[in-house]
Order: sequence, then structure tokens, then C-alpha cells
Amino acid sequence: MSPAENGPAPGRRFLSEIREQPAALLRLLEQGAELARIAAVMRERDARLVRLVGHGSSDNAASYGVYAFGLLPKWTAMRDSITLTVHYGTPLDMTGSTVIGLSQSGRTPDVVEYVRGARGAGAFTVAVTNDPASELGRVADATIALDAEPELAVAATKTYVNTLAALALLAGHAAGRGQELADGIRRVAEQMQGALPGLERSTAKLALSFSYTGRMFVIGRGVEFATAREIALKLLETCRIAAEPLTTTDLAHGPVAALDPLFPVWAIASGDGTLASVQEAASRTREMGASLVSSGTAADRIKGAAFTVPVPLPEPALLSPLLSVVPGQLFALALARARGLDPDAPHGLAKVTLAS
Amino acid sequence: MSPAENGPAPGRRFLSEIREQPAALLRLLEQGAELARIAAVMRERDARLVRLVGHGSSDNAASYGVYAFGLLPKWTAMRDSITLTVHYGTPLDMTGSTVIGLSQSGRTPDVVEYVRGARGAGAFTVAVTNDPASELGRVADATIALDAEPELAVAATKTYVNTLAALALLAGHAAGRGQELADGIRRVAEQMQGALPGLERSTAKLALSFSYTGRMFVIGRGVEFATAREIALKLLETCRIAAEPLTTTDLAHGPVAALDPLFPVWAIASGDGTLASVQEAASRTREMGASLVSSGTAADRIKGAAFTVPVPLPEPALLSPLLSVVPGQLFALALARARGLDPDAPHGLAKVTLAS
Repeated sequence: MSPAENGPAPGRRFLSEIREQPAALLRLLEQGAELARIAAVMRERDARLVRLVGHGSSDNAASYGVYAFGLLPKWTAMRDSITLTVHYGTPLDMTGSTVIGLSQSGRTPDVVEYVRGARGAGAFTVAVTNDPASELGRVADATIALDAEPELAVAATKTYVNTLAALALLAGHAAGRGQELADGIRRVAEQMQGALPGLERSTAKLALSFSYTGRMFVIGRGVEFATAREIALKLLETCRIAAEPLTTTDLAHGPVAALDPLFPVWAIASGDGTLASVQEAASRTREMGASLVSSGTAADRIKGAAFTVPVPLPEPALLSPLLSVVPGQLFALALARARGLDPDAPHGLAKVTLAS
Repeated sequence: MSPAENGPAPGRRFLSEIREQPAALLRLLEQGAELARIAAVMRERDARLVRLVGHGSSDNAASYGVYAFGLLPKWTAMRDSITLTVHYGTPLDMTGSTVIGLSQSGRTPDVVEYVRGARGAGAFTVAVTNDPASELGRVADATIALDAEPELAVAATKTYVNTLAALALLAGHAAGRGQELADGIRRVAEQMQGALPGLERSTAKLALSFSYTGRMFVIGRGVEFATAREIALKLLETCRIAAEPLTTTDLAHGPVAALDPLFPVWAIASGDGTLASVQEAASRTREMGASLVSSGTAADRIKGAAFTVPVPLPEPALLSPLLSVVPGQLFALALARARGLDPDAPHGLAKVTLAS
């Protein structure tokens, strides 16, 4: 038995929730009929402009939603501005839009308010939440329950992965490929279960080399930009590292100039059309003398990485972000512990953020 | 005569280009007829979904475009994914869309490729560039010339401000308010000219307190999120600070936990519907012991700021970002000099980024 399972070790909840992710994914699959029904309404109402809203990890998942809807039904999806309608009171015509409000708690005030307004403005509104009885669940036309069971660590893990899966499934159903995506997610749950013990060991070792890191970039592109954002957020909130997520071109357009040997880069690589761009960014990183961690399904194809943390390749490949976030979660856990911080309860944060 | 005007002082070009911004804005106004014509085509073609694409400072300006089109003609605008169509080859139907490709040089490869593809997919395409004879200018249906004259410092200044102005003018014409916006920008040029000498002095003093800063958040919301992104980018590329832009709610959803007395926050405050949210974020910042700089048109309404750098209020107020970026530009200049860095030519960067 590891120390984490035995008594109140820091990050005990965080670790057990990371380990619960495969089971949480399988529970979500039981929502298949409701997901198919919601996708049918989207098609019937011709509500093919998808507006995603959420904060924190939910907003990171929204970055993935842009690609899930773009790649599967070939619809345009966007992370919409909450401020424009909620804080500036701008009336927008939302006929032809599906609004997807993302909130683990279902209580994020301006997300609830945005969804309420969008419904009045003609949008078909869908809540994605771990608490279907929440206010968000009540104001939306339809609700997808994340079924991740209560998440107690402040830093989101299983609700993030289940939100990715819910978006992939909904987009799959919208494209008439719901069964294929469900089968893929079932395999992802198995792949994750199989990979977890090895990843726990390798990230614990990796964390030792980053005990004194104060700044980091996390880079990804396309489907993996969501992963870059989510890993950076874990490092910020649990390890107090100034970790900034960047696309590979963001890095080249200025930030690369800030790199030095004490400013490492974590790169998430997929073997898709973005690989050349990640390889180029990795090469710029090494030229600046910064050390490089490569992860993702194509981690082995990044030259010169000081550390490599690969994950299995799912089928279809657009499910990669469900797996590639896991090394980042585990690295954040191990690094927080190495620094004497408790990732279950970071200083200054509460589980439900009511700021808007 | 200041040292910067006398000989090859570091940042000499950067400073002179900051000072040229009022004149550059007035030159842009001569494009009024072309801007009105382009807006008329957008209305005639009913191309009211606005897709903005660019990298670096151009992408920061795109964040402003979302609000310019949202607040003026009440159209939905978005920073679109370049990766989805260019790197993943996804066919999207872009009928009913206006695409605005933003590139100072007009040579950013994937922006050119995105615009070419979008035109073939039915979009009305507009190039916004400082070089109308560039490839971007040639592939688009219409071109807005920034008329900022050559920009030689690597870090963009006058092309950024003129891109904001071009988007505000185009959105103003789309809303039948082109003359009002042109008048507003003419006044902004005067306000900026009047404010520059005082801002040069106050930011030079301010920089002395941040000589050893390695990490910073820059927060803004709504129209000023673009400003937060642009100031953070200036600090990254010219001062090698790990400066991350966040919305005020982003800050509350995790990153606030990383703050400490050596991790300051720069907040941009406007006196609009977002002010309460900026005030709340400022209060969370102080609770974490982090020092706070407040700038923007409502800088004086942020309590407990260690430093305050206000700018004049333009009319209409949605032009605020044209002014509120200037203290950040000048602070980056002064801080780079204090650190012995040359903001005209940051290590590892070229003026035209050809990575895609």
C-alpha cells in the first residue's frame, strides 16, 4: 500500500480521483440514449453553430469541443464570450445556435446567466454538469449528467475528462458516429487503466527534476491545445508554477524569447497534421537552452526531449486528449508533494468558484 | 534630448514607434471610404458571422474584434481555429461568414492558407495588413491597409493599435456608425498624443520597482482582455517575464493560488459592466499578498493598488483599448532597459515569423 492510500497524505483525494477516471468514463457511456436524443434535436433545429461557455477546466474542455464538433459533424464551434451578453447586456440573435454550458458544480453564476439569456434569444441550450439538479441543469433545455460521482479535490480531474468525453460523444452522435465514439471511449478507459501504474511511477521520478521550477510553458496544438491549457492550470493551482499554455505558433510569435535553462517547456505531441508544428516548436525550445518534456501519443517523435512521457494511441485519434492529460495530472500531484503543498486544498481556492 | 533619441540606445526604435501611434491612427482614417465599402459588402452578402484569424499581436487584436462586432452591429465574431482547416484539412461551409485575416507583414503562412481556403469555402475574405501588396493582400477579396508605415522593432506597437482601430471602424460601418467611430479615433489620437509624455515618465519610475520580477499576471475583461494579452506579450518578448494574460474569472478559477508577494498582478480596469469583476479580482490579489498595478480608464477605481497608471476615457468607451495598451508598451520598454535587454531585437525572435 502506498503512503497516499494510508492516512491523510497531501493529495490523497486528488490521486484517488485521478485513479477513478476510467470508471467514471464507463459510467458516462450509460448516457448514450440521452446524448443521441440531444444530437437529434440539434440536427432537427438546424442549430449547427455551437457556442461553448465555461470557466477554468470547463473552458479548457471547451477548447476540445471546438475540434470535436469541427472534426466529427464538421460544424463550427466556438468558445463564446460570456462578457458580451452577461456583463455588457448585448442582445444577440442566437437562432441556429446550440449553447453548451459547462460547469462541474452547475453553479457558476455567469454561465447560468449566459445560458438563461441564450435560451431566450433562440438558442437550443444544453447543460453539461456533474450535478443535474443544479441551477444550470434547471435553466437549460437539456442536460448531460457527467456521472463522475462527487469530486472533492479542488483541482478538477475526472469531471474534466468526462466533459471531454461528453463533448466527443455528442459531436459523434451529431455526425451519425455515436456508436464508434462510444466504443472508442470504452477502449480509452481500458488504456488509461492499464497505463496508470506506469505513469504514476514515471511522473514521480520526473517531478524530482522540477522541484525548483518557477516558470513553465505548456504547448500543444489542435485537439491537444485543451490538454496544454489543462496541464498548465493544474501546475498553477497545485504547484504554484507560473505555467502558461501556448499553441506552438503562439510560442514562436514572441514568448520563445523568454526561455532559458531554468524555464522548461512541456510539449504535447500527437501524430496528426500538427506534429511538424510541435517538432518545430520543440527545436526552437532547445535552441534557447530550455529543457523539454515531451508527452502525448507521439511523445517519442520529439527529438532532444530531456524526459519523455508517452501515452497509448486511442482509436479514433481525436480521443487522445482523454489520455494525454493524465501525465500532467500525476506530475502536478508529485510535484506539489515534493514542494510540501497539498493539491487537495490549494491556498486561496474553494471547490466552487462563485466569482463572475 | 533624452538618451533614447540620441544615438543607438536599446529600444530606440520601439520608443519612436510608440510615439508614432497617434500619427498612424490619423493616417488610417484616410481609408474611410474603403472601410465603408467593405462593410457594405458584408451586409449585402449577409456575411454576419465574423471569423478572425492571426497570431501574436494580431491574435490579441482579434480578441478586441469579438467585442467591436458584438457591441456595434451586434454580430457574432470569433477567433477561429486555423488548425482545424489548415492542419487537419477539415472542409467547413463558410457561406454567411466574413473572414478577417490579420497579419502585419501579410506573410504569416497559415493565415494566408486559411484565408485562401475560406474564400474557396464561400466566405467573404478581408485582409488587414501593413503590406497590401503581400500574399495575404493578394489572396483576400478585399484589403484594409494599416498605413502604419514600416514597423522595425520586433515587438509590434503601432500596427497593433491600428489593427484595433481598423476593426472598430469596420464594425462601426457595419452598424451604420462609421462617422461616429472615425470621430472617436481622431479624438483618441489627440488624447494619446497628450498623454504620452506623462506616461513615459510614470512608467519609467514604475519599472524601477519591477527589476527582479520573473512572473506576472495581466488581467482584463471584455474589451480590455485584448489589452491584457498584448501587455503580457510585450513583457514576455521584451523583458523575459513569464507574464500570463487572464480574464478576471480565469484568475479566480485556479491561478490565484499561485500568487505571492513576488508575483505581481497588472489589472486593466474600464468603467463598464466588467468593473465589479475587476475589483473583485483585485481584492483576491491583495488577499494573496501580491502587489497590484492598476491601469486603464478606471484605474483609480481599483482599491489598494500599489501603483496606478490611468489613461484618458475615449468616446465611445469601446475605444479604450487603443489607449490602455500604451502604459504597458512603455512599461515594457523601461523595464527591458532596466534589465539591460534591447526591446528592438529580443534574443531568438525575427520581425516576420514564418513558423506555422
